[in-house]
Amino acid sequence: MSLDTDPSVKPHERLAAFLEGDMIGVNTLIRERMASKHAPRIPEVTAHLVEAGGKRLRPMLTLAAARMLGYEGDNHLRLAATVEFIHTATLLHDDVVDESAQRRGRPTANLLWDNKSSVLVGDYLFARSFQLMTDTGSLDVLRILSNAAATIAEGEVLQLTAAANLATTEDIYIQVVRGKTAALFAAACEVGGVISDAPVEQVTALNTYGDALGIAFQIADDLLDYGGDSGTTGKNIGDDFRERKLTLPVIKAIAKADDKEHAFWTRTIEKGDQQDGDLEQALALIAKHDTMAATRQDALFWTAKAKDAIAALPEHPVREMLSDLAEYVVARIR
Amino acid sequence: MSLDTDPSVKPHERLAAFLEGDMIGVNTLIRERMASKHAPRIPEVTAHLVEAGGKRLRPMLTLAAARMLGYEGDNHLRLAATVEFIHTATLLHDDVVDESAQRRGRPTANLLWDNKSSVLVGDYLFARSFQLMTDTGSLDVLRILSNAAATIAEGEVLQLTAAANLATTEDIYIQVVRGKTAALFAAACEVGGVISDAPVEQVTALNTYGDALGIAFQIADDLLDYGGDSGTTGKNIGDDFRERKLTLPVIKAIAKADDKEHAFWTRTIEKGDQQDGDLEQALALIAKHDTMAATRQDALFWTAKAKDAIAALPEHPVREMLSDLAEYVVARIR
Repeated sequence: MSLDTDPSVKPHERLAAFLEGDMIGVNTLIRERMASKHAPRIPEVTAHLVEAGGKRLRPMLTLAAARMLGYEGDNHLRLAATVEFIHTATLLHDDVVDESAQRRGRPTANLLWDNKSSVLVGDYLFARSFQLMTDTGSLDVLRILSNAAATIAEGEVLQLTAAANLATTEDIYIQVVRGKTAALFAAACEVGGVISDAPVEQVTALNTYGDALGIAFQIADDLLDYGGDSGTTGKNIGDDFRERKLTLPVIKAIAKADDKEHAFWTRTIEKGDQQDGDLEQALALIAKHDTMAATRQDALFWTAKAKDAIAALPEHPVREMLSDLAEYVVARIR
Repeated sequence: MSLDTDPSVKPHERLAAFLEGDMIGVNTLIRERMASKHAPRIPEVTAHLVEAGGKRLRPMLTLAAARMLGYEGDNHLRLAATVEFIHTATLLHDDVVDESAQRRGRPTANLLWDNKSSVLVGDYLFARSFQLMTDTGSLDVLRILSNAAATIAEGEVLQLTAAANLATTEDIYIQVVRGKTAALFAAACEVGGVISDAPVEQVTALNTYGDALGIAFQIADDLLDYGGDSGTTGKNIGDDFRERKLTLPVIKAIAKADDKEHAFWTRTIEKGDQQDGDLEQALALIAKHDTMAATRQDALFWTAKAKDAIAALPEHPVREMLSDLAEYVVARIR
């Protein structure tokens, strides 16, 4: 596998090329539905994010699942737009919660306008996403996506209370990751199967694929924050440490800590009393307990799970792209 | 009519007594659905608001409509809980947007916890409300309530941009009021009719009733802020003026302002440069153009519209209570 070294064949780029026609339809729908007769602030704020040039991975998952299973209607476009609206709404609210000033290298909406606009425009997009789902006429779709929306919000609240709490277990971490990333990946895949009237085993496999893909992706991201193969990323080492976010490399190090080490984590993460040299000490403890390798193993476990799940679907070019995508999200940490 | 002077027969109290059994079911459902396996912060924040002892007017409207039309299932309980969840979510987000410190005489959730919790728990309740709606299996209900949620958010964004803008028309004001109050009142009534399989004219009448009731209620509220029959309320005169919120008494006074008066409104509302004596001057201009009386007429117009609409429904004790309720919300300004 050398997908990660040759940008012309990255799996999400192959997916984007395959789904190009559908994505034009999705983008038209997004522009139509983010309009507001009365409040021009809404499309201004939304366009700032939607047109910021993200990869549109989530809507592509929905389109990919539908295409792979031979769907021929146009509800896959509505659902792809739905998924992008839910994602955009959560980004708007996340930036308020995290008091972020930048996203994808641009100033955030809460900085360009204000927190009020970010909260309320996010609410508008949530409402719009439920209108779009309702337009599909599928109660199954509504059930899946409203469950995902609840998991997302629950995961975010959990992160709020779990952050800086040394008692955070790996189970709680996974639940937070489901909220941050995996729940929407899983739902995006699953609804593509549901509208295609796929058999229940295939719909379940799509959910498992999306969930595992999201978890692998997030673990890889958290690993890179403490180094990983950092030469290839633009991230600053140690952001999560400075922000006192408990992620797997540290959770695993805390589980193996002796009394003195535990006191170090209590001071730096729980109490937030950080001094020069503390990041280096954290990295030393992570190295001592070899938790980078253990975390990498976890990411690879979820990638394998995603690949197994997708292998249960009928043969199709898109199936291979999705399988490669699961490899690709962890290729950064090999 | 002396409903407002005898607390034992206030129409919402008669409704509450009539619907007592149903409300017990609704409260049980609310407690069940605000639980969170993983994040105890969610029920803490929600309970603070849900159990603060509001009148539960919105869920009562849903129950009332269903009972009046002979509904015999249990989806009216789910929908009443849905409506209360949407209301609670908007209160949580409103308090963040308005930077409020008090609601119903108690500290707000954003003050007791933080803005983050208010934003995310609000999102959780929105998601929960869509799960509850989906459980009813009615796509019509989902359409009505997702439209209402979009109107609410749009109205709030509009208020953000219309506030302190002297060009705000009465039409824009009504649109803001629909977002703040009337859209959820209308949807709460309408879905009670929809699950009862009521004929389309009755469903439309319920929507019209709820919309007009909400607008009458909000206009009366805004009127009381500049005096009205202020002896009977605990409100401070002039809060909206100090907060530079454009409401009907001022919008109407601006429409009749000469150049000098216009300069006064520009300075105090648009620029926010307020000095001692300005509130008195605003009240004098409102008196000069007699806009309190004109605003009162508007409120009475919407009350009459609500009463006309509800009169089209079949005879029922609840119908009389709803009709009296429309009188009651403006009785404060007579």
